[in-house]
Amino acid sequence: MMNDRFLRACRREPIDRTPIWLMRQAGRYLPEYRALRDKHDMLTMCRTPELAVEVTLQPLKRFDLDAAILFSDIMIPLTPMGIDFAIRESVGPIVANPVRDQRAADALRVIEPASDVPFVIEAVRALRRELDGKTQLIGFAGAPFTLASYIVEGKPSRDLLLTKKLMRCDPAAWHTLMDKLAQTIAAYLRAQIDAGAQAVQLFDSWIGALSPRDYREFVLPHSKKIFDALVLSGVPRIHFGTGTATLLELMKEAGGNVIGIDWRVPLDQAWQRLGDVTLQGNLDPAVMLTSPDVIECEAREILSQANGRRGHIFNLGHGVLPSTPIENVERLVEVVHGTIVG
Amino acid sequence: MMNDRFLRACRREPIDRTPIWLMRQAGRYLPEYRALRDKHDMLTMCRTPELAVEVTLQPLKRFDLDAAILFSDIMIPLTPMGIDFAIRESVGPIVANPVRDQRAADALRVIEPASDVPFVIEAVRALRRELDGKTQLIGFAGAPFTLASYIVEGKPSRDLLLTKKLMRCDPAAWHTLMDKLAQTIAAYLRAQIDAGAQAVQLFDSWIGALSPRDYREFVLPHSKKIFDALVLSGVPRIHFGTGTATLLELMKEAGGNVIGIDWRVPLDQAWQRLGDVTLQGNLDPAVMLTSPDVIECEAREILSQANGRRGHIFNLGHGVLPSTPIENVERLVEVVHGTIVG
Repeated sequence: MMNDRFLRACRREPIDRTPIWLMRQAGRYLPEYRALRDKHDMLTMCRTPELAVEVTLQPLKRFDLDAAILFSDIMIPLTPMGIDFAIRESVGPIVANPVRDQRAADALRVIEPASDVPFVIEAVRALRRELDGKTQLIGFAGAPFTLASYIVEGKPSRDLLLTKKLMRCDPAAWHTLMDKLAQTIAAYLRAQIDAGAQAVQLFDSWIGALSPRDYREFVLPHSKKIFDALVLSGVPRIHFGTGTATLLELMKEAGGNVIGIDWRVPLDQAWQRLGDVTLQGNLDPAVMLTSPDVIECEAREILSQANGRRGHIFNLGHGVLPSTPIENVERLVEVVHGTIVG
Repeated sequence: MMNDRFLRACRREPIDRTPIWLMRQAGRYLPEYRALRDKHDMLTMCRTPELAVEVTLQPLKRFDLDAAILFSDIMIPLTPMGIDFAIRESVGPIVANPVRDQRAADALRVIEPASDVPFVIEAVRALRRELDGKTQLIGFAGAPFTLASYIVEGKPSRDLLLTKKLMRCDPAAWHTLMDKLAQTIAAYLRAQIDAGAQAVQLFDSWIGALSPRDYREFVLPHSKKIFDALVLSGVPRIHFGTGTATLLELMKEAGGNVIGIDWRVPLDQAWQRLGDVTLQGNLDPAVMLTSPDVIECEAREILSQANGRRGHIFNLGHGVLPSTPIENVERLVEVVHGTIVG
């Protein structure tokens, strides 16, 4: 049975039920994921197609989800660029050679996906075969700003002080870094599309740290290069960030025909501002730690805001949290698929 | 020489220059503050009027600021409520007895400032004498939600998962906790006003974690109780939060005749939405780590957004960061006071 609800919602075509998938749907909240992670580290799992495929498929065996998303990490394309990083347990990416000047930015290379990340291409191809058109496959990448924040800070950071300092005090170095990231990510996403990804999502998770003026000057041109390079592919392009309440119009200008929002912006207000675009979101992942009944109530509220509008993909406002109970995800999917759209 | 620019801006009266003060203007970026902190711990400094007065006055000796803000910590009124906490260096408040159910919320008491926090009242009185009308004195408190987040989580938290779980899964316990905090904070701020504070600021620093619906249901009624209790005092009431782009109208509804915003919302957009209100902000504190010239340029941009409007108090979008160079603060104050309003 072919299910194309997700793609229909991306194109704003009529649908019977709202499609749903969850960011980080393959992750620590699944015991079968934890079992695999006990045996392999994160980067090994990303770089071994058999493991990446297995993990990608895990949530689909439990839940009636409308899309699969390639299991990977946003840091993966950075190694062949010349960034030396490790992922430290319960901390995140730690970069041995942070980029903080023109010389370091110049030294980075733009990747060639076929030779630099063949394991990703292989995983996407294998997933398309496995999914066999029954569930849509989403490819993804980190956006230049969010990747740059790790590359400049050298570690996860709340305030992004070094990142903001580099962009303002050495804008030439900043734009070199962002341009190389944009070229790399455009090639990386094109390679995923060529290998069979039926949609792609650009994750600009930490963009909410910036003011609209900063976004326009230091980020928008680079994210736009990526979306412009993908338009001709014809596949839906999802543009996601958190804390983006004052950035939504600029994110749409940068590109993407689906805008992913967090729980801080009500869906109906986002549509009012953005017009005819598909929205993806936007349940607070913290709600997933409450109870099935609370989740049902909150999910219905979101569905009611979307009712009568074409182009809604149900998702959380950010990734599934590790302590999310399985039964809560079950109830969420039931509620979304149990509600007739009309 | 009497300087009432700050109060005039609060009341939206004409001013010659934009008043400026900085959240956390007495803090670690000042060597004289670090010298005192080497000798005394944070809570001792808050609870010893001579020390609190000395620290409050430190930044005024260096910079031409238009307001002083009482040196204290938002956790101070919680001890007499029955919350047992310590402040751990470079982490923040750690609560030994977090409140996570009705019984624990019932056990909290509403404080009586005169007997429970006499050192705060004494510090405010001494500061008014010292300042002698030359610089205005701002009293402050943490808002119920931000205080509740520490009380429920037991420590600083990014996602506030336990806080959000309590509000949704045990709303009765949540509202008991918030009501006791609201009563305590109303009494605490009234006592500061009675002792001579010429304005008060309610810090709801972490409120940006919530959706507008959550804010309306779980927070607004409690913050409103505090502002309602202070209206008759006649002193300006500043309502501050970060990440509040989708909450501004609701924050205004809760109360305050000055709204403090962070750098994510452009001043002109905030005025468009809120109408005739004084705005306080909104330079990104990260900008203060760049260079005097970059700061000058960014400050001029903010001043130009405010030009022609009455009711702007220059401030950062959040507190001064510990690594801020002194010369950068000097330049900021020079630029703001060097610009003629009109």
